[in-house]
Amino acid sequence: MNKQQKLLNVNAIVAIASGKGGVGKSTTAVNLAVSMANRGLNVGLLDADIYGPSLPRMMGVNQKPELTDDKKLIPLVAYGVSCLSIGFLVPEESPAIWRGPMVQSALKQLLHGAAWGFHHDKGLDILVVDMPPGTGDAHLTLVQQVHLNGAIIVSTSQDVALIDARKGLAMFQRVNVPILGLIENMSQFSCPRCGHASSIFGHGAVKADAEKFNVPFLGEIPIDLALRESGDEGRPITALDPDSPISRIYSHIGEKVIVGG
Amino acid sequence: MNKQQKLLNVNAIVAIASGKGGVGKSTTAVNLAVSMANRGLNVGLLDADIYGPSLPRMMGVNQKPELTDDKKLIPLVAYGVSCLSIGFLVPEESPAIWRGPMVQSALKQLLHGAAWGFHHDKGLDILVVDMPPGTGDAHLTLVQQVHLNGAIIVSTSQDVALIDARKGLAMFQRVNVPILGLIENMSQFSCPRCGHASSIFGHGAVKADAEKFNVPFLGEIPIDLALRESGDEGRPITALDPDSPISRIYSHIGEKVIVGG
Repeated sequence: MNKQQKLLNVNAIVAIASGKGGVGKSTTAVNLAVSMANRGLNVGLLDADIYGPSLPRMMGVNQKPELTDDKKLIPLVAYGVSCLSIGFLVPEESPAIWRGPMVQSALKQLLHGAAWGFHHDKGLDILVVDMPPGTGDAHLTLVQQVHLNGAIIVSTSQDVALIDARKGLAMFQRVNVPILGLIENMSQFSCPRCGHASSIFGHGAVKADAEKFNVPFLGEIPIDLALRESGDEGRPITALDPDSPISRIYSHIGEKVIVGG
Repeated sequence: MNKQQKLLNVNAIVAIASGKGGVGKSTTAVNLAVSMANRGLNVGLLDADIYGPSLPRMMGVNQKPELTDDKKLIPLVAYGVSCLSIGFLVPEESPAIWRGPMVQSALKQLLHGAAWGFHHDKGLDILVVDMPPGTGDAHLTLVQQVHLNGAIIVSTSQDVALIDARKGLAMFQRVNVPILGLIENMSQFSCPRCGHASSIFGHGAVKADAEKFNVPFLGEIPIDLALRESGDEGRPITALDPDSPISRIYSHIGEKVIVGG
């Protein structure tokens, strides 16, 4: 059942997961990948969300990848990051009405059927994998197919998000993937007019969970209009404005992940 | 392949879907169900999210359902609504590390293995189904197993959410399920101190999409702390404060759905 392989020309693989959707997993994956590339690392970004790929929109790249002579997909490069997504292969508005085995085979193709090191002489230092919500086919396929160096769990501080985040954490622990840490996303919103901070999706509970489960707390990322809009426009804030306060938070989290891993 | 049946003692079935997770699908499903029950309808609520069930927490019910003499699950009643969720059957913090076929069989159990009309002499007027994100196993199973009277698509006004919402819409249209309409969720946030409205997740794009795709626009629901907190506490705002402005929006949407359906 377990056919873990090291991906060719990829030094380390880190999954960005959550359990619940819509907590900012893709925003986190994209900005962590770009901020690691800003440091000079060779970074890849794999969008493992087959039903709702966000990478094409968020990284502002979308075309059919070319193939190497031995028929491997060549990642598209955006902001220095080598990217692959099922979104490059199917039209943006077409639903993938697929049962599990098709998800499995699409994901295997993006993992083993790609020339991940193509754009970098020495291969990738790190491949960041943006996971879909849930604990199902994509997750099982990933942990069985490749050696994962670790997982980062993203959650808001809401109970309904934390319940699912704990499930994600338990799943990775059960298959012996180290938890690199938890991130609290959408942690507060400051009114652009008066500066008043509202905890729209709660605040503080992710850090408390990190302590409870004895895993690192990597940081908290506020709700930020520029962050959201830059993602929707395909220009990650970490690329557009690497010195902004938000970009520094991602850079700091990236540093913890690199040093810790 | 297609074995659609009418569920015993259920008059109509409506799916609440989105494509993307975290846009407020469960909050919408819960509050629509409660507001329909407030009107005196016999309402059921099926949580079809096997990986991340939110119903137990949001409706404040969680115990093992009893069985009828012919071994059917008896829904739990909360706020007048007959509820079933995989969350009643597995521990809250235990992940369902399941491939597609197990999801399929769990969902079939909750549909056909339940005595949906148990608490109501004349059966259910309407069964509201809270769908998981994506367009995969749960969706295929639902549309193949039962006759769906319609689907409501929930989205924020962000591009990355709308792309997935359009996939959801296309999926239901492809299998001839009528689209009852689109709802814009998290449409604006008013600062509790100064009242300034911020379009954190965009505003207006869902309505524009409804016009583009020629489907009804059912309304917009603002980001509201009381709405979010009441959900996390298991006391839906439509039950707690049925005359609040937010509850009236749900009631109004429910009316459109009932009259339109």
